[in-house]
Amino acid sequence: MKRVTCLLYAALFLTSAQYALAQKPEDAIKYRQGVFRVIGWNFGSMAAMAKGKRPYDAEQFARNAEIVAFMSRLPLEGFTPGSETGDTKAKPEIWLEMDDFKAKMKKMQQEVDALAKVAKTGNFDNSKAQLGEAGQACKACHDKFRNK
Amino acid sequence: MKRVTCLLYAALFLTSAQYALAQKPEDAIKYRQGVFRVIGWNFGSMAAMAKGKRPYDAEQFARNAEIVAFMSRLPLEGFTPGSETGDTKAKPEIWLEMDDFKAKMKKMQQEVDALAKVAKTGNFDNSKAQLGEAGQACKACHDKFRNK
Repeated sequence: MKRVTCLLYAALFLTSAQYALAQKPEDAIKYRQGVFRVIGWNFGSMAAMAKGKRPYDAEQFARNAEIVAFMSRLPLEGFTPGSETGDTKAKPEIWLEMDDFKAKMKKMQQEVDALAKVAKTGNFDNSKAQLGEAGQACKACHDKFRNK
Repeated sequence: MKRVTCLLYAALFLTSAQYALAQKPEDAIKYRQGVFRVIGWNFGSMAAMAKGKRPYDAEQFARNAEIVAFMSRLPLEGFTPGSETGDTKAKPEIWLEMDDFKAKMKKMQQEVDALAKVAKTGNFDNSKAQLGEAGQACKACHDKFRNK
């Protein structure tokens, strides 16, 4: 446990999230879950269009993508020391393999940035394809670091 | 109930949030709560600096303010028809007095926009003063439309 805590402090100071470190673990958990809820809501909107469950609205799709790209920068600071237990699906591996966790998050950020860019063109097929790439980046992290 | 629903549909179509209308009420509740969690987390960071609980970090303060300004545009679409009951502190008055709810949200958006602007200057006193204004705009809505 001590090792986990040290690793985390080292990782988090690099992100300058000193506020996060001062928060109660349960608040950090609620914060990061809040971030993922907002991402999920907007991702769901794009997925519904990609799957033909509702008509493609280029403006709405682009707005959803822009929100997801913005939100993708926010969750990391919520993975504070001590917040690996509690009402969370986060696996302890996050804190033990923080470098890989951050790499997967970085990959996700890159894919959703690309999505926001392509969404602005209003091309449905390209947007749909890039949504798939972004989804894969989310899934790679969920598969390794999130409990069902 | 029927009147509430009609009013809400009218209000929401104007915000083009058709995706939101297709969601389960509990998901809409979780979405908007997620938005407010992220706002609260960032507001808390700025408040801690304003109250001297931790040192003023102009860059961090400005980042918090920018995030809050961005997030302030997101909650409205989560107040969907049928989501006035469930695990929520939202009062039914939101749906009965949607115009006033939207006006109060607009006021909040204006105040947090002003906050993001002043925060960028790096002036602590002005930032602190505008944080107070933004907080009052949040409170005005909470007092009328949110249960304790």
